[in-house]
Amino acid sequence: MIIIRNHYSRQNASKTKALKEKGEMKTSYKPRVVIIGAGFAGVETAKKLGKYGVNALLIDRHNYHTFVPMLYQVATAVLYPHHVIYPLRRLFRGLPTVNCLQAEVKEVDFHNQIVCSGNLVIDYDYLVIATGSQSQYLGVMGTPENTLPMRTLPDAIALRNQILSRFEQAAKVTNEQEKTRLLTFVIVGGGATGVELAGSLNELICSAFKKDYPNLNPEQTRVILVQSGERLFPSYAQKLGEYTEKWLRHRGIKIYLNSKVSKVTPEAVYLEDGMAIFTDTVIWTAGVLAAIPKSKQSVKTAKKDKIIVEQTLQLCGHKNVYGVGDVSYVDTQQEAFNGVAQEAIQQGKTAADNILRQIRGESPKAFNYYDKGRLAIIGKHAGVGKIGKFAIKGFIPWFLWLEVHLVYLPGINNRLGVLFNWLKYYFFGEGVSRIIISTVNSE
Amino acid sequence: MIIIRNHYSRQNASKTKALKEKGEMKTSYKPRVVIIGAGFAGVETAKKLGKYGVNALLIDRHNYHTFVPMLYQVATAVLYPHHVIYPLRRLFRGLPTVNCLQAEVKEVDFHNQIVCSGNLVIDYDYLVIATGSQSQYLGVMGTPENTLPMRTLPDAIALRNQILSRFEQAAKVTNEQEKTRLLTFVIVGGGATGVELAGSLNELICSAFKKDYPNLNPEQTRVILVQSGERLFPSYAQKLGEYTEKWLRHRGIKIYLNSKVSKVTPEAVYLEDGMAIFTDTVIWTAGVLAAIPKSKQSVKTAKKDKIIVEQTLQLCGHKNVYGVGDVSYVDTQQEAFNGVAQEAIQQGKTAADNILRQIRGESPKAFNYYDKGRLAIIGKHAGVGKIGKFAIKGFIPWFLWLEVHLVYLPGINNRLGVLFNWLKYYFFGEGVSRIIISTVNSE
Repeated sequence: MIIIRNHYSRQNASKTKALKEKGEMKTSYKPRVVIIGAGFAGVETAKKLGKYGVNALLIDRHNYHTFVPMLYQVATAVLYPHHVIYPLRRLFRGLPTVNCLQAEVKEVDFHNQIVCSGNLVIDYDYLVIATGSQSQYLGVMGTPENTLPMRTLPDAIALRNQILSRFEQAAKVTNEQEKTRLLTFVIVGGGATGVELAGSLNELICSAFKKDYPNLNPEQTRVILVQSGERLFPSYAQKLGEYTEKWLRHRGIKIYLNSKVSKVTPEAVYLEDGMAIFTDTVIWTAGVLAAIPKSKQSVKTAKKDKIIVEQTLQLCGHKNVYGVGDVSYVDTQQEAFNGVAQEAIQQGKTAADNILRQIRGESPKAFNYYDKGRLAIIGKHAGVGKIGKFAIKGFIPWFLWLEVHLVYLPGINNRLGVLFNWLKYYFFGEGVSRIIISTVNSE
Repeated sequence: MIIIRNHYSRQNASKTKALKEKGEMKTSYKPRVVIIGAGFAGVETAKKLGKYGVNALLIDRHNYHTFVPMLYQVATAVLYPHHVIYPLRRLFRGLPTVNCLQAEVKEVDFHNQIVCSGNLVIDYDYLVIATGSQSQYLGVMGTPENTLPMRTLPDAIALRNQILSRFEQAAKVTNEQEKTRLLTFVIVGGGATGVELAGSLNELICSAFKKDYPNLNPEQTRVILVQSGERLFPSYAQKLGEYTEKWLRHRGIKIYLNSKVSKVTPEAVYLEDGMAIFTDTVIWTAGVLAAIPKSKQSVKTAKKDKIIVEQTLQLCGHKNVYGVGDVSYVDTQQEAFNGVAQEAIQQGKTAADNILRQIRGESPKAFNYYDKGRLAIIGKHAGVGKIGKFAIKGFIPWFLWLEVHLVYLPGINNRLGVLFNWLKYYFFGEGVSRIIISTVNSE
């Protein structure tokens, strides 16, 4: 067992705490903050702490930050994988007090203030839990083994491989039923991820595949969106959901509303009304569950397994532990949060602010969310959004989405690359190299 | 079992053959050529046949062509994977008589003129075998399971993941011996691939890693090149091998000449003189073997398992079957070929020419190799090469290598992307995003 200690020993730390209480805080001691998860919330916390010279250790299972809102464009071969990620070590190169560690956290011990990862034991003065969310399968039979998720970069690459290789297989199959099954793509979930993916996948089929597979009949290709609720985009205004539905249907996407999936097999998806859709590709975007790390002491959770935190984002009973982003539920909040990037970013900043206040001996402040609005793309020249109280649709939210995401994407190289690819895609209908990077599928 | 027949039935084909023999060849019938392997030789054959409107089917296990000479730059994070490949369907979009199929060929039957792949049976009038080569492990104990190859794009990506994750692991290990073992990279084979990889890996360590891992000691990192012969680059002039050796040693690369590997374990490489090098990464570039597809009728092979072909590149006894590129050995050739891209490209062209001649009822011509010279890069501003009888070294072959490979790389997007990345790498020492795309390693 290896113990990674702070530069300053634990004794030193408690001495400092004592000094702090007496109001004799030494500036030479900088407590260590451990942050678990390098999503929007975790990265933002680390950035702010790094700017103030606080020792921070950012732990993630990947060595990169993923820009999740653009992941679906990797799955549909509009962008390259490297466009939507940023290596953590490069991101924090200018902030020498921030360290990165690629590791999977096995257990957290709030009492002894340690984080365990394999045979590593890391001690902390402050802990920020920013572990995000995971897919929720709602106990549907045959999930997750027969469905594909769309949450991480490896997921998006696997999905691209799956889509492209179904076309390659369809090109060499002569049985028409099997061909139709291979060319049927079912997306479960009518939220932002599901709708954006459906729209983008349909465009991929209409533009690039027609050129690549002139011998395949485009009529045989189907994109099917299955939504359990009565409309798409349940978190937006009703008219936006209706607009989206009309827009997608007009472009040939089949939409099943009020339809719950009862079973998924390797051959088909079964709906609760008994209908079977024969397909080789089921993409699961329905519902999320908080991804809480295992802890020695139990934590209070709200719906969707989220950790209940106080309005200061501190865990109840653990003043030096914060919960931010998708993993946490802010107690007594009036409006439920939607799990969008802005919420995570703002919570990350607040957690860093509050840790800085605690270090200075001040008391933490309550989190206050400033809603900048939301946007989603459904296809070329078509988007939906709400800004303040206004629900907008059509060209303006589409264009705004592209602008906003280009601005928030980290790294000038990534921005230029994405801009170049979007222009190429817009004018020529050509995304990126449609390559299948995997071992060959057995026939 | 599914049989993919030519547009024209077999009867039609034999009728045409009869007509051809009588000198009444109908231009309306175009025989089908099946090409196995989309390397340099296979692609070149398909291109030429496509230009003359001959029906050709190009079969490969991947859906893309790989520009192998630049693969090592993917492994060392100088280039992105998509820079060195080109999707086959896009490559042949302008040639409607060329079709592509992503499949693994299981067996060839020269007598019945069929190629089997799973439950697909594909018939041919002419067959071109362009299946290239595979790694040769020379029966060394512990290979291939404890070594990494560098022959395909998935290999290069796996190698990049391996190198980057050894650094991530070393960053969290406190045992100095284990840290040194993780940071030791052994390359077996002192040919072009081994030397180029060693030089590039050393540059990666000196530039980017120093920035990414300020806490690691660069002295602990070692690149070791093991060569069985008495000098590097055995296929070049002796002074070029000596120059390369001096250049690499000067930059801190350890070189063991006259050293054969006797055993590889998960912990170390053992040389025949009893020395053990403790390492977690052994890259195997020593020797190749032809990758002949299984065939119902036996074929005559030369050294390295290569199929013996006549000077016209036709298989002995099978006038409608050609062997091109690394997989074949041209009988009675004066000089042994070196397995470079130029040989494959020129053989591919000759095979296409000869098939066109056979279709017109003419007799095939002998292959004549025009040696344009060879080049290899060993590091910044340093290369070696031979052009005609001249052996050159230093800046000129380095610069020529970059130019030549940029010109031969397929696709304007790829060329621009590679040029941009090379310039960035040259001026800033920054390659591409150093991301590890794989599941997290257990501690």
